[in-house]
Amino acid sequence: MDYYSSQISKLIEELSRLPGIGAKSAQRLAFHIINMPKEQVEQLSSTILEAKQKVQYCKVCCTLTDQEVCPICSSEKRNKKQIMVVENPRDLAAYEKTQKFEGVYHVLHGAISPMLGIGPGDIRLKELMTRLQGDIEEVIIATNSSLEGETTAMYISKLIKPIGIKVSRIASGVPVGGDLEYIDEITLLRALEGRIEL
Amino acid sequence: MDYYSSQISKLIEELSRLPGIGAKSAQRLAFHIINMPKEQVEQLSSTILEAKQKVQYCKVCCTLTDQEVCPICSSEKRNKKQIMVVENPRDLAAYEKTQKFEGVYHVLHGAISPMLGIGPGDIRLKELMTRLQGDIEEVIIATNSSLEGETTAMYISKLIKPIGIKVSRIASGVPVGGDLEYIDEITLLRALEGRIEL
Repeated sequence: MDYYSSQISKLIEELSRLPGIGAKSAQRLAFHIINMPKEQVEQLSSTILEAKQKVQYCKVCCTLTDQEVCPICSSEKRNKKQIMVVENPRDLAAYEKTQKFEGVYHVLHGAISPMLGIGPGDIRLKELMTRLQGDIEEVIIATNSSLEGETTAMYISKLIKPIGIKVSRIASGVPVGGDLEYIDEITLLRALEGRIEL
Repeated sequence: MDYYSSQISKLIEELSRLPGIGAKSAQRLAFHIINMPKEQVEQLSSTILEAKQKVQYCKVCCTLTDQEVCPICSSEKRNKKQIMVVENPRDLAAYEKTQKFEGVYHVLHGAISPMLGIGPGDIRLKELMTRLQGDIEEVIIATNSSLEGETTAMYISKLIKPIGIKVSRIASGVPVGGDLEYIDEITLLRALEGRIEL
């Protein structure tokens, strides 16, 4: 990395620390940034800083937002009695894109993973339990269908059931438009187990 | 993108304009940045700005550097009579990694491409020709072995030969259609050793 100036090397190094950006991509990005018009670089730099400074956790659902309470939690159109639990804001966005879910969310910011040493205390579970003291009808667990996601779903359902609130889990199965031959066996089995009568 | 706060959406949008970063990667990066410690974000932001502000073109070889003249051009150990012409600073870095080339470089910042409307006047060719008025023994053309790279090599050799300076081209140990920066060091060395006079 000594083939470049120290500023370029430093930029490459910092970019390569970002997730999914290897040494080559970092180089490419760094030279692209240096060749960008000055105003665009200034904007990129300040946007990064601003996002970090202004974005906070929603006091209700823990998603990332620039207000005390996020637009979904403060919307009067949403059904506050139905809470969908997701692992992160990207999953929330994925469900929002469907435009069909009218409840609210709870963002855990992670999933329980004994392998990675992430326990129930490391995700936003306490905040969920506090919310359940209100008037809640259903908790829909929409964590990923990975080992961690399933563990988290099991854990949460065991916590909530004794309170007497309905707990459900989104169905796992063959994705719409998916070709059976390309789908893994566990998913195929889940789809079989979860079959519904027509 | 309305599922996030405006700051996050703006960050995602700006990141997705960078080369090789799609909508999904931009989302992932944006959330990663927001979850990074404040000091790291401040550093990333300022490193980007600094790199743009301080990096300039070397007055001799046109590579990117933070000094008037880059470390290679100002090194007394390098043979100033042998100039290797490359398309961009990444290619320069690729040859520097071999630690075998003792001459100096000239960075064109592009290649001639009639398809893209990039002519000889759009790359740093004039600067190369000016350098050749000095005491130069050999010009090694190490542009990529793509159509544009070959076109550029032919064009340069036709310009230089009448001056009476030896012109060579790195050997086609470099696979046709290959991009210099992705090629292993041994192949790069073979190509250097096997260079043929044009």
